[in-house]
Parts: sequence; structure tokens; C-alpha cells
Amino acid sequence: MYKVSGNVWIEGRHGAFIGLGRMKLLERIKEHGSITVAARSMKMSYRQAWELVDSMNKESVKPLVVTAAGGVGGGGTVVTAEGDKAIKNYKQLFTRFEKFSKSETAKLKI
Amino acid sequence: MYKVSGNVWIEGRHGAFIGLGRMKLLERIKEHGSITVAARSMKMSYRQAWELVDSMNKESVKPLVVTAAGGVGGGGTVVTAEGDKAIKNYKQLFTRFEKFSKSETAKLKI
Repeated sequence: MYKVSGNVWIEGRHGAFIGLGRMKLLERIKEHGSITVAARSMKMSYRQAWELVDSMNKESVKPLVVTAAGGVGGGGTVVTAEGDKAIKNYKQLFTRFEKFSKSETAKLKI
Repeated sequence: MYKVSGNVWIEGRHGAFIGLGRMKLLERIKEHGSITVAARSMKMSYRQAWELVDSMNKESVKPLVVTAAGGVGGGGTVVTAEGDKAIKNYKQLFTRFEKFSKSETAKLKI
């Protein structure tokens, strides 16, 4: 009947660094090579997506997302190796939290 | 530099059953024998506190809080054994979640 649920995220020096929504946004940016398209695919405004990216970049020593201006074929938005690391770290944390929640739910049934 | 943080709660059939705020409210009701005084001590409106208590009572087979009307010295609001169990269960869950967060934070430092 009862179920343990929750949220888990990683904080940096000044506040939120990465959580489920930010992790998904990074994945979409990686997929589409564009903050605009990534934002649209998540029904988020460009401004909101940009602010989340900016916040993640500011919490990190190295940026997670970089935008190359101009060049042949126009600029591109890229998730860096640091960004990939953040995605991977959060996914592992999330998976372990799901395991924790399941095990805690089982304890409630006793 | 990075720190794992989060929220954890227990859900019933229809939604939230008990989380940190509701657990604290139950403790205050137990302490003061009154929803009104408990609410005030948490800078919460009576209505808000009553709704939280009502929601917990509805998610539970047995009520967590009962109010006795009238009687010598007026009615009293009491946290039941079921309420004590909910407080205890949530506290244990919260403690284990804090341990989980600490251990996850340590992993991020590697």
C-alpha cells in the first residue's frame, strides 16, 4: 500500500547543479546539437533552457555545454566531456536512489 | 565541492502520506495537544495544518490524529499509536536517506 518516493540531485557551491530535469535537458542538447530544439522538445522556453545550462556551467569548473559561433555550416552546440560525465554521474546516482526507494518500500511492508 | 541532496517521502494510494513537514507537524501536535498551537508554532495556517492531518488520516487505515470533542477540560487532540508509528517509520527512512546522500557525496569526490 505505501511506497517510498523522492527526488535526488547534486548541488554545487551556489545551489542546484544537476537533477533529473537538467540531466534530460543535457541529453536532448546532445541529441539535437541545439538548445533551441532541445528546449522545444521538452516544452520548455529557450530562456528557461539557457538559464539551466548557464547555471550548470557556472557550478562546474569546466563548462558542460559550449556553443561555437559561426564557422562552416554555422555554430553548433556541444555537450562536452565534462557534460557527459555529469550525465553519467547523475544517472548512476538516480539508479541507486531508485534501488534505495524500492528497498525502503519493501521495509514498510514488514 | 559537490553534494548530493534530495527529498524523501512516503506515498499512499492517493498521493503523499508523510514527508519531513508532515512528520514535524505530527510531532508538534503531540507536543501541544492542539492542531491550532502546532500550526502556529510552524507559522502555518490552521487550515493548512488541518488539511495535512486530514490527508494523512485519509491515506491511513487507522487515523494518525484524533480530536475528542468536549469532555472534562474540553476536547483534546491526540496523536494515536498509528501516528507514532508513522513518525518513527519516517524518521528511520529520513536517517537512512541522509546516510545514502552522504555516501553518494563521498562517491562524487573520487
